Amino acid sequence: MSRIIKRRSKKAGLPPGTLVHVGKKRAEKAKITILDYDGKNFEERVAKRVEDCFPFKDKPTVTWINIDGLHDIKIIEKIGKHFGLHPLLLEDILNTGQRPKMEDFESHIFVVLKMLYHDKAENEVRAEQVSIVLGENFVISFQEGEGDVFDTIRERIRGSKGRIRKAGPDYLAYSLMDAIIDNYFIILERLGDRIGDMEDEVVDNPSKEALRNIHHVKGEMVFLRKSVWPLREVISGLERTESRLIDEKTNIYLRDVYDHTVQIIDTIESLRDTVSGIRDTYMSSISNRMNEVMKVLTIFASIFIPLTFIAGVYGMNFEYIPELGWHWGYFAVWAVMISAAMLMLLYFRRKGWL
Amino acid sequence: MSRIIKRRSKKAGLPPGTLVHVGKKRAEKAKITILDYDGKNFEERVAKRVEDCFPFKDKPTVTWINIDGLHDIKIIEKIGKHFGLHPLLLEDILNTGQRPKMEDFESHIFVVLKMLYHDKAENEVRAEQVSIVLGENFVISFQEGEGDVFDTIRERIRGSKGRIRKAGPDYLAYSLMDAIIDNYFIILERLGDRIGDMEDEVVDNPSKEALRNIHHVKGEMVFLRKSVWPLREVISGLERTESRLIDEKTNIYLRDVYDHTVQIIDTIESLRDTVSGIRDTYMSSISNRMNEVMKVLTIFASIFIPLTFIAGVYGMNFEYIPELGWHWGYFAVWAVMISAAMLMLLYFRRKGWL
Amino acid sequence: MSRIIKRRSKKAGLPPGTLVHVGKKRAEKAKITILDYDGKNFEERVAKRVEDCFPFKDKPTVTWINIDGLHDIKIIEKIGKHFGLHPLLLEDILNTGQRPKMEDFESHIFVVLKMLYHDKAENEVRAEQVSIVLGENFVISFQEGEGDVFDTIRERIRGSKGRIRKAGPDYLAYSLMDAIIDNYFIILERLGDRIGDMEDEVVDNPSKEALRNIHHVKGEMVFLRKSVWPLREVISGLERTESRLIDEKTNIYLRDVYDHTVQIIDTIESLRDTVSGIRDTYMSSISNRMNEVMKVLTIFASIFIPLTFIAGVYGMNFEYIPELGWHWGYFAVWAVMISAAMLMLLYFRRKGWL
Amino acid sequence: MSRIIKRRSKKAGLPPGTLVHVGKKRAEKAKITILDYDGKNFEERVAKRVEDCFPFKDKPTVTWINIDGLHDIKIIEKIGKHFGLHPLLLEDILNTGQRPKMEDFESHIFVVLKMLYHDKAENEVRAEQVSIVLGENFVISFQEGEGDVFDTIRERIRGSKGRIRKAGPDYLAYSLMDAIIDNYFIILERLGDRIGDMEDEVVDNPSKEALRNIHHVKGEMVFLRKSVWPLREVISGLERTESRLIDEKTNIYLRDVYDHTVQIIDTIESLRDTVSGIRDTYMSSISNRMNEVMKVLTIFASIFIPLTFIAGVYGMNFEYIPELGWHWGYFAVWAVMISAAMLMLLYFRRKGWL
Amino acid sequence: MSRIIKRRSKKAGLPPGTLVHVGKKRAEKAKITILDYDGKNFEERVAKRVEDCFPFKDKPTVTWINIDGLHDIKIIEKIGKHFGLHPLLLEDILNTGQRPKMEDFESHIFVVLKMLYHDKAENEVRAEQVSIVLGENFVISFQEGEGDVFDTIRERIRGSKGRIRKAGPDYLAYSLMDAIIDNYFIILERLGDRIGDMEDEVVDNPSKEALRNIHHVKGEMVFLRKSVWPLREVISGLERTESRLIDEKTNIYLRDVYDHTVQIIDTIESLRDTVSGIRDTYMSSISNRMNEVMKVLTIFASIFIPLTFIAGVYGMNFEYIPELGWHWGYFAVWAVMISAAMLMLLYFRRKGWL
Repeated sequence: MSRIIKRRSKKAGLPPGTLVHVGKKRAEKAKITILDYDGKNFEERVAKRVEDCFPFKDKPTVTWINIDGLHDIKIIEKIGKHFGLHPLLLEDILNTGQRPKMEDFESHIFVVLKMLYHDKAENEVRAEQVSIVLGENFVISFQEGEGDVFDTIRERIRGSKGRIRKAGPDYLAYSLMDAIIDNYFIILERLGDRIGDMEDEVVDNPSKEALRNIHHVKGEMVFLRKSVWPLREVISGLERTESRLIDEKTNIYLRDVYDHTVQIIDTIESLRDTVSGIRDTYMSSISNRMNEVMKVLTIFASIFIPLTFIAGVYGMNFEYIPELGWHWGYFAVWAVMISAAMLMLLYFRRKGWL
Repeated sequence: MSRIIKRRSKKAGLPPGTLVHVGKKRAEKAKITILDYDGKNFEERVAKRVEDCFPFKDKPTVTWINIDGLHDIKIIEKIGKHFGLHPLLLEDILNTGQRPKMEDFESHIFVVLKMLYHDKAENEVRAEQVSIVLGENFVISFQEGEGDVFDTIRERIRGSKGRIRKAGPDYLAYSLMDAIIDNYFIILERLGDRIGDMEDEVVDNPSKEALRNIHHVKGEMVFLRKSVWPLREVISGLERTESRLIDEKTNIYLRDVYDHTVQIIDTIESLRDTVSGIRDTYMSSISNRMNEVMKVLTIFASIFIPLTFIAGVYGMNFEYIPELGWHWGYFAVWAVMISAAMLMLLYFRRKGWL
Repeated sequence: MSRIIKRRSKKAGLPPGTLVHVGKKRAEKAKITILDYDGKNFEERVAKRVEDCFPFKDKPTVTWINIDGLHDIKIIEKIGKHFGLHPLLLEDILNTGQRPKMEDFESHIFVVLKMLYHDKAENEVRAEQVSIVLGENFVISFQEGEGDVFDTIRERIRGSKGRIRKAGPDYLAYSLMDAIIDNYFIILERLGDRIGDMEDEVVDNPSKEALRNIHHVKGEMVFLRKSVWPLREVISGLERTESRLIDEKTNIYLRDVYDHTVQIIDTIESLRDTVSGIRDTYMSSISNRMNEVMKVLTIFASIFIPLTFIAGVYGMNFEYIPELGWHWGYFAVWAVMISAAMLMLLYFRRKGWL
Repeated sequence: MSRIIKRRSKKAGLPPGTLVHVGKKRAEKAKITILDYDGKNFEERVAKRVEDCFPFKDKPTVTWINIDGLHDIKIIEKIGKHFGLHPLLLEDILNTGQRPKMEDFESHIFVVLKMLYHDKAENEVRAEQVSIVLGENFVISFQEGEGDVFDTIRERIRGSKGRIRKAGPDYLAYSLMDAIIDNYFIILERLGDRIGDMEDEVVDNPSKEALRNIHHVKGEMVFLRKSVWPLREVISGLERTESRLIDEKTNIYLRDVYDHTVQIIDTIESLRDTVSGIRDTYMSSISNRMNEVMKVLTIFASIFIPLTFIAGVYGMNFEYIPELGWHWGYFAVWAVMISAAMLMLLYFRRKGWL
Repeated sequence: MSRIIKRRSKKAGLPPGTLVHVGKKRAEKAKITILDYDGKNFEERVAKRVEDCFPFKDKPTVTWINIDGLHDIKIIEKIGKHFGLHPLLLEDILNTGQRPKMEDFESHIFVVLKMLYHDKAENEVRAEQVSIVLGENFVISFQEGEGDVFDTIRERIRGSKGRIRKAGPDYLAYSLMDAIIDNYFIILERLGDRIGDMEDEVVDNPSKEALRNIHHVKGEMVFLRKSVWPLREVISGLERTESRLIDEKTNIYLRDVYDHTVQIIDTIESLRDTVSGIRDTYMSSISNRMNEVMKVLTIFASIFIPLTFIAGVYGMNFEYIPELGWHWGYFAVWAVMISAAMLMLLYFRRKGWL
């Protein structure tokens, strides 16, 4: 449940713009890292105090400030004040139950995304909220805890691979989003594998375990869908925005991300269809099974109950039961019983139950 | 049912604009409270007569008139006349089965919302209708009964916390709506908890009680959905309206409320999906259970009915049954019976029923 | 079925504009009543011949001509000719299977609505078609039979209550529509009550009768939905039309009717959700019941079949069964049987079946 | 299946515009009939050779050329060439799996419709494709076989009934479409009757036959829907087109057809809802039935199995069973057994099973 | 699963525009074939080195370069560089999990489609990605492996059949798309046949095999839908694009392809409805079957258990059982037992179980 509804109770009733962290505390101490680069130069450092990243605001080079850990509200507040971010924007950063969205505040563009990862302990997909602020010559990214999917981007910046060192902060912001969305494919692949396994299992062995699995995967789909659907709007909003912060040339890359998003949504819908098909199959399999159980019972009962009745008849103690005195009576009864059983078996075979 | 359909029968056939209170009488006596403030001054009082609040109409300060209790139609009528409200608007205030909506009457803006609360006695979510009239320098709010979610706003006005004392009546109206919508999150959290509890219960123990719970929660979802869906339109209507009553600066706050509304709708949809998944699981669990019951029956019957038959055979009173005379006949029969039972058990194990 | 599909067979193949009455004949004789009024004067009469209402066409006062009974095609034809109504319009009036719709023929506006009423004999909601023609200074309404929801409007005109005597024919037309739509709320209330009763019944007692009720109510929903959905378009069409026949001031009243329509549609959708929830619950309850039945069977069979077997064993007539000679043998067998039964009961209790 | 998918395999890979007849051959020989008329004159003839209809192209009178049978591709080709029809249009005429559509080729308008008829042999609704080409002063209609719903139109032309002889070819084309769509109502009526019959049957007697009927009717709905849905677009396309071929005055008639189309779609949707309700009821009825069967079994088994056990006990051959020697022992056992049975019956009555 | 989700893991984290082949390697060695033609001349050859096709870029004739096999990234790269294709376009060509799409890069138009084929080994529909680049005077097509549906087009070019040799590269591109989409009809026919077979089977014999078939066909539908739905957008995008690369005259052909696409989507939706109907029928059939099984059991048990009880009574060893001494006692018991059985049979016949 906590994945779908974030506890916000402590927030209710506070004036708008009041900064309260909503969500689990995932990092011990907030960690601020700064990457500053242009085509020629490159600098990387971990800020000890939040003030360390202030000078980069007006430097003409591209600066990427990454903050891991949102529980230290003071840091967020100071950065907000220095970089001129609206209090409501800061509130959104801290409220980790935020829906993916994009807002254009002229002097900067604000994007909220969900970074998905697979929680091995719970065998569940979980989401971490990533907020990205794109300014004139800086990008600030806020994450809930350490560990992310941006290492390859850092590598590319350090190694000056690809276009990234030559491009502006909009390309950096794009790269971050692209990395997050690329990671969705991996999550989907893993989910797809699990669903594929279930498909085969369910017709032959509709166990309680399988039911639990279906239920679980369905929950995953609901969660994924909620995280991914709004993305389409977000990216197409970025594409259409006329902000001067996004270069013409970056648009074609955004178009590419947009295609990926649509592809992911498509795949989720297809998987949903598949899962609901599996559930239907599960139900049918169970009914099939019950049918089988019932058939076994019916065959046994229908054959032996009449025979037991016959045996019972000749177990009666009437003084005068003529058959009892016949010499071959016992064997005759056996003959009758065996042929009755045969007839029943024939009847069941005709019905296709055997 | 009464939550979904309000009795309006007494209203049918009356000319439009006739004031009739539709809904339960929730307050003994209507209570009018007035808060009047600007950046410097602040005044709070309970009006004894409805006329007490008339002078505030043209005062340049911001005035918030709150009326608890709608059954006294005269009060509503007098306020309506003095503040120039349209008769249809008054009708809407009194008809508590109103759908959330927003209307722009140039000289004032009219908003109807549902304030949700959790009725502990019935363990149900209930709605109280709140109507807000935003005028040039006043806000009038109408509630069905006492008790609301506005105490923190009153606190903020009294204590001059946040922006509220410096801002105009549009900000006050926004704050009221924000408080109502913020409260939805709490309702959803509680509902989410209940659903979360059901999830675990249903696979293992698909009891009748669980069925009743699912049914109940589903009813809650239908009700919530009905209350919340129209909100999106209402808020975006306020955002888009070009009324001079809403300041440019307030728009960004409305945008924020809009985001919350979308988030709530999203969550409700996700919960709906979850609940319908739980229902499916319930059905499957019941089928699973029946399967189990049937297996037990089948195993018992299939093992013992044939054995009973064998015993029956040697209980027959034929004069000539050769086996009966054999010394070890009895033990031989036991041997046969035990091996028959063993074979059956093997067969069931092969089928995976044991 | 006849509520959903009106027999039109006799109409097929006729040229368009041919007047044929489609539907049941509900009135013995068509009845024409005329109400003519302005702010000061008022006249009411029953027309003996259709020609009696012709002079009112050009009178500057507001005239309301109401025709009960559509089977007398000549009357409809004559009125059509005199008031300049298009043949296709007349065809629509006579075809009582018409969908609610609104058409603007410059010199007059044509609206078709469904007036719902509760047929007590069949315990079903039924619809009567009402066609309203709004002209320069007249309103003509066509109904299938006598008896309608307009009595309060007549009262208001006679008694000069409310705005109606001062307003034009557009306000009269609005009043008629408002009366029809207000009546929907009463129908919905009654339906809601029935559904509410079903809700409680279904979990505890999923009888065949309940199934029939669910089925019946579902049919009602389908029918209601078909009658009500197109209304939204009709009313918003009236609001948006730029016809000079509808006064600016009437628009706010149309807006009100529109709100009611949306509210009704909302309620129908909520009821649909509720009914489909009830059906699901019904299915689950039946499964639950079957489970219970099976448990009783299984418990009885599983306990007594083994015991019967034991009794059968000692009913065998072997010459040498050592146990039979033991003095306490009989009591020992009882002890065995009782403890076996106890063990079984324990086992079932563990399984939670007892 | 063949109703849903037409075999097109032989067409795959041919260049566009290649004329191949897709569908069953329904007429032995193509038959061409010509009706030529204006307000005063009227001429009707069957063309022996396709060339017979060429002179009518430039005659100022209205000409209706009707071709029954599509398998003779040469005829289609020649007509196409002479009347200046695009090869792709001819392809569409021949491909009877075509979706209803409308295309405006400036010099002529092309409409494809499905004429439905009831195949008595198969008790199924079937569709025949009708293509209509509306030119400056001619209408060409192509049908798959003889027999159609146009006889009343022919009658009207011959008898000079209605507007038809005075109006242009657009009115003729409208009349053809109107006749086809009017016929849908008859098909729907028949279907509605069948569904109505099913409704009553299913609660009381959920037989296999009923299941087959539901399945069959569902298939009909799928087929009907596929034929009718695109019609809305087709007709509204005709209404909106600015082609000079369609007179202003004809538009109101098209509007009328449009209304009919919407009404048909509405009815189909309502019937779909009804059918799916019937299916649900069927499922519930079956479950109800099974419940009943199980109850009978359980009652019988639960009463007699314990009694049989008691009888078995006193059938044992222990040497010392004290009860056996009591004089009234036999009757005492009967007393015990009868009271046990009574208790069981009481218990089942309490459970509401009797 | 692999049909729905393509493994992209190896791609995650790479900078955009990095060329990585996603998908199975279907061809041993990439094969490049060139067809160059205009109205008079025609040349066909297999390129040994990728550079062989470079000179055709600026030749005024129409050139069709077809590449089978995508695993050799260098070839793709070289062609991309020479023909001025954007790196993201090349990325899309290599990523065979691409969704059908169309992009207009001014100097060329890029279309991605899925070519479906029936994999006989797995009895499954599979898709191969075909990318088409339409330039000023060339068309480049990329396929995953050898074997395609373009042979008839090659034939037409070689034989100068149809319009193709006289038309430009846009017509060639259209022809390729048309061939691919025409092939869908064949796939659908085959699927339709399978579904038709299932329809008949399922009512009479709801076997486990049938369940597996339904499940399988449902999977096919999900897959087909995913491949076909985006096509509509693609083709209408091509129609609406204002690129100078697409001639006016080609538009009517695109319109034709569009119609086919809509027809295919329609058919898929109808088939989906049919399949889901079959599944419902399957479930009902199984329930019906179980009912039948239960009836057999109930009839047998209810008849013979009471009889066995009677026999058991007279098997008791009480010293004093008066009936035992009666001379005709045995026959009287038989009479009682037979009439009891008769009564039961009568009762079951009344219930309609026999």
